[in-house]
Amino acid sequence: MIRLQQQIKLVNRPVGTPVKEDFEFTQAPIGEPAEGEVLIRTNYISVDPYLRGRMNDVKSYVPPFELNTVISSGVVGQVVESKLPNYEKGDIVTGMLGWQQYSVAKESEIRKIDTKLAPASAYLSVLGMTGLTAYFGLLDIGQPKEGETVVVSGAAGAVGSMVGQIAKIKGTRVVGIAGSAEKTDYLINELGFDAAINYKTEDVPAALGKACPNGIDVYYENVGGEIGDAVLPLLNKFARIPVCGAISAYNNKEADVGLRVQSYLIKSSALMKGFTVGDYSERFKEGLEALAGWLQEGKIQYEETITEGFENTIDAFLDLFKGANLGKAIVKVSEIE
Amino acid sequence: MIRLQQQIKLVNRPVGTPVKEDFEFTQAPIGEPAEGEVLIRTNYISVDPYLRGRMNDVKSYVPPFELNTVISSGVVGQVVESKLPNYEKGDIVTGMLGWQQYSVAKESEIRKIDTKLAPASAYLSVLGMTGLTAYFGLLDIGQPKEGETVVVSGAAGAVGSMVGQIAKIKGTRVVGIAGSAEKTDYLINELGFDAAINYKTEDVPAALGKACPNGIDVYYENVGGEIGDAVLPLLNKFARIPVCGAISAYNNKEADVGLRVQSYLIKSSALMKGFTVGDYSERFKEGLEALAGWLQEGKIQYEETITEGFENTIDAFLDLFKGANLGKAIVKVSEIE
Repeated sequence: MIRLQQQIKLVNRPVGTPVKEDFEFTQAPIGEPAEGEVLIRTNYISVDPYLRGRMNDVKSYVPPFELNTVISSGVVGQVVESKLPNYEKGDIVTGMLGWQQYSVAKESEIRKIDTKLAPASAYLSVLGMTGLTAYFGLLDIGQPKEGETVVVSGAAGAVGSMVGQIAKIKGTRVVGIAGSAEKTDYLINELGFDAAINYKTEDVPAALGKACPNGIDVYYENVGGEIGDAVLPLLNKFARIPVCGAISAYNNKEADVGLRVQSYLIKSSALMKGFTVGDYSERFKEGLEALAGWLQEGKIQYEETITEGFENTIDAFLDLFKGANLGKAIVKVSEIE
Repeated sequence: MIRLQQQIKLVNRPVGTPVKEDFEFTQAPIGEPAEGEVLIRTNYISVDPYLRGRMNDVKSYVPPFELNTVISSGVVGQVVESKLPNYEKGDIVTGMLGWQQYSVAKESEIRKIDTKLAPASAYLSVLGMTGLTAYFGLLDIGQPKEGETVVVSGAAGAVGSMVGQIAKIKGTRVVGIAGSAEKTDYLINELGFDAAINYKTEDVPAALGKACPNGIDVYYENVGGEIGDAVLPLLNKFARIPVCGAISAYNNKEADVGLRVQSYLIKSSALMKGFTVGDYSERFKEGLEALAGWLQEGKIQYEETITEGFENTIDAFLDLFKGANLGKAIVKVSEIE
């Protein structure tokens, strides 16, 4: 008997904002693990803004998704059948796996996670790529020093909320920019940000000037666009801008046009650096240990927006571009048993 | 008897491109050196694009020129009267001094130069701030590695021509962008650049793609604008962009609008860093020694566009924004005796 499962494939390259028709649910047999492989039942799927970039057919250092193949991203799942000596049925693992109900994986593609330290889904947020993205971008590029002012955009999102909390641990003044009163309240009252700006209702340049009376030393860029522009005149001498994301531009059909940065960077001898978390793969262990430590000490907290049901995965992804999520957007596909 | 001299003052803050009426020639007494000072007769005045920025009344880390005061920049002059123990009449010195025929200076404002090593005017170009600007921007921020591709804009200018030659010393492929056939010929035939693009007659994005078949590892930015934009899609992984100048924007009356850099920096994990040569003041000795060594070994050459006569100083400055100069623009005020 062939057992079937659901998968999600990319069938069109989105033009502008992705739509449901760019994706397709298909049925396929559940794979059989060969020697050296395990079969995993998917519990949680991570949906992330950066996946939008992989849907374009352009040269990049993360290759684009191929059309008519299963999309992949961070996944947490449970081993249901093992042909690997050091894995057994019931082990909970994470890896970059397909948007499907079951995956077959080799040992190099997965690692076990410790659900005593944190719930399994946390390995897709604070203890996964999201936490590492915040950690390395802020600390390696941003290098915040005690007493400095750190501004983060997309501040209530998965990465931004971690950035702000790590910046607080480092003794800085932290200003978050987010898109609703619920989010700015969360930043100030739950996460301890010093100030928060609602870009949908406030004049961002004026509000930033007010929230940053001593200028801006570090701007952690998640959104680009006019918010990124508004930061430039406020940069202090030797300011640093880790450029993690530009979600405002991901769905642009035209070139992304705004303030040129050159004159601002010269005036302040400022640094801007783009990165992807993969640039730091040799230091993941260091980052995960630091994040786990802060989590255990209660110094960082995290929020998840969990969408129930594999059939809602595409909606959860599309919601990212509406700013619907607080913290990490995750799809729950099945219970851990 | 009071001896008089000519001076040049800034009398209006330029709006857009500076015009002659923004400046005024005035007469003033030649100063008398007090104990610990020297009187210097001006031989050469350096005119530089960055001075335009100091003519605006905006917060910056180099303070703006005050209205109705004498403009200052790099000067070479000769001591005509000394009340400093280790300086004597006839010594040739350089420092940041006024646009005037004579200056009184303290010891901390000047240093002696060695005209056996190079002609006096060279201390305003290759052995002065210009050479140091090329040296530190390229080597400290750009960090070119053998076999990489280095692109420099404003390539036939004072800084750009040094950048290209230092990049050749470091074993890279060097592509220059300049504004006339005379300049591109000079870059290839005199300075040994591997390729040169005339931005006034060529399609820069297409020409860059052709001249950089392996992409761009370092872009030394002197001009900004559409040329800076054209580089972004060609950046290689971990590319570096030292941002030295943006002459295309210095006279803009409106905000400088063009391609936003964020998405490009993320795709290539690229770094952009603004700087001014003053950021490296503690390492000037190292830089000057390296430049003097290369000059003596015949590894770098330099060109000067010398305007004769103090009365033509303002024209020489205004010509910078027409791209009239090849190499360093200098005004010769008087002969060294």
